[in-house]
Amino acid sequence: MYLESELGIIGCGIAGVAAAVYAKRAGLKPVIFEANTLGGQLLFMETVDNYIGLPLGTKGQELATNLRNTLDNLGLQIINKLVSAVNIRENKIVLQTDEANFIVKALIIASGAKFKQLGLKNEDAFLGKGVSYCAVCDGFFFKNKPVAVIGGGNTAVEEALYLSEIASKVFLIHRRDQLRALDYLQKELFSRKNIEVLFNSQINQIKGKDFLESVTIKNSQSNQEKELPLRGLFIAIGVKASTDLYKDIVSLDEGGFILTDDNMKTSHESIWACGDCRKRPLRQLITAASEGAIAAISAYKHIKGHYISS
Amino acid sequence: MYLESELGIIGCGIAGVAAAVYAKRAGLKPVIFEANTLGGQLLFMETVDNYIGLPLGTKGQELATNLRNTLDNLGLQIINKLVSAVNIRENKIVLQTDEANFIVKALIIASGAKFKQLGLKNEDAFLGKGVSYCAVCDGFFFKNKPVAVIGGGNTAVEEALYLSEIASKVFLIHRRDQLRALDYLQKELFSRKNIEVLFNSQINQIKGKDFLESVTIKNSQSNQEKELPLRGLFIAIGVKASTDLYKDIVSLDEGGFILTDDNMKTSHESIWACGDCRKRPLRQLITAASEGAIAAISAYKHIKGHYISS
Repeated sequence: MYLESELGIIGCGIAGVAAAVYAKRAGLKPVIFEANTLGGQLLFMETVDNYIGLPLGTKGQELATNLRNTLDNLGLQIINKLVSAVNIRENKIVLQTDEANFIVKALIIASGAKFKQLGLKNEDAFLGKGVSYCAVCDGFFFKNKPVAVIGGGNTAVEEALYLSEIASKVFLIHRRDQLRALDYLQKELFSRKNIEVLFNSQINQIKGKDFLESVTIKNSQSNQEKELPLRGLFIAIGVKASTDLYKDIVSLDEGGFILTDDNMKTSHESIWACGDCRKRPLRQLITAASEGAIAAISAYKHIKGHYISS
Repeated sequence: MYLESELGIIGCGIAGVAAAVYAKRAGLKPVIFEANTLGGQLLFMETVDNYIGLPLGTKGQELATNLRNTLDNLGLQIINKLVSAVNIRENKIVLQTDEANFIVKALIIASGAKFKQLGLKNEDAFLGKGVSYCAVCDGFFFKNKPVAVIGGGNTAVEEALYLSEIASKVFLIHRRDQLRALDYLQKELFSRKNIEVLFNSQINQIKGKDFLESVTIKNSQSNQEKELPLRGLFIAIGVKASTDLYKDIVSLDEGGFILTDDNMKTSHESIWACGDCRKRPLRQLITAASEGAIAAISAYKHIKGHYISS
């Protein structure tokens, strides 16, 4: 079965929602795909305190509800299907799902990003059993227990600071001899008495029965291995753009993020990208929302022609 | 008197507030200037329905209150003074007010934009007495009365549509023979029975005693002049960036908007710009907020150095 539409939008995090809202208000009828729950990463946020304009103390779930209400109010429905392939056929873009194929004139990619994994063999098996990619989501479960954060960037340090208020002890494990995090974060980090930073260190093994019990760490300078008893292991080594589907149709940077111009246009003349899947100067909800709006208006102009005389 | 600071921010519309919040959260202590009321243009908005993420039906005043609360919560205070001059002295930026001069290492300009005027001799005299630059602010006062909107772009057509639900009759007066507004707006415009579009037409005179009574219009094709009885005249011919202070220190485009790169950096290495004063692809609250955040983090990196090792 083939269904046709002017505009497809893949992904319903805040970037995809912003794109859908602006597209609809401009008079387009977008088809919107989201295989998971509307909201993307913001569902995992306790309090959204960096999205300017919201009432103080707004929860991630509340923001997701606001987005849902905005879509409902505009009569926009989400197709809760995974887009499994995207192909270009004779200047048309074909989006494949397990139920139907959609042919769209223009496409906005808002597919987001996923947390990078360490690649250890039982990392997946311990997910939710001590291993986590989000301190704000799961930190609460480790009250007065020893935990570790892996990484050396802003996110890793922020997670360590967050966890130090909950856990009995926080190890920050980093494979290099210095952190990449911003100065003020590092100052705060080194001022906390229950945080210990382990430089030049990598995890080799995750151990435990039903739940995480310890990890083995190797120091690359001394070549010595030691076992560290832990209940929680927070992996904060970065994000990977969810762009595998698009690598043959639009240009990506070396990290797999989609390259666009100021109008969010990709290397393909009928495809736009916005939010975490895109190479961008600042990875924030507010920038994602802004990019969704810009992508939609840019796509609108492409579909309808810039200005049409009366 | 001279006061020193790392960072100055001029303007407290949503772009300036976003910049202040991100700067403060990054550990800077910005000095923030706003000669008028916090909120800028959003104070004139009835309902803010294009700022993704807010609860449905949020008023412009409520959004302004949220912004004010966010600043208060971070302990950020606004200096309610006009910055009357900005000078560069030996790599330092000097901001002049009538009380003190401020020397800042870095500056974020979020000075916004103002509505363009027709330039008629009594335009200012009739402001608030029939002449307006904002249908949403003032439309209510013209219930069942004849009004006109001047302009041919999106804003002019949107204002005509808005007013057609309130006024008895709406004339859209445009000096050219076609509109520049988006297609769907034009379709809606021409479907409204109480809207009449006057092409090739310019206003020569605004007449009235205490309040607007009529305007004289000249048709550039027929060269004929006629008098049109009106109670309201809404001027929607564009916006002018509030950038006169900066024209000798940063590069502007031909329209007076500040040119920046992706990180909101201007042609001066210690000055950033965001929001309506900047040349940008889409003039919206959400894009202004995003730009404020990007400008602040970019300025932060410039002031502190990108990454500082432990």
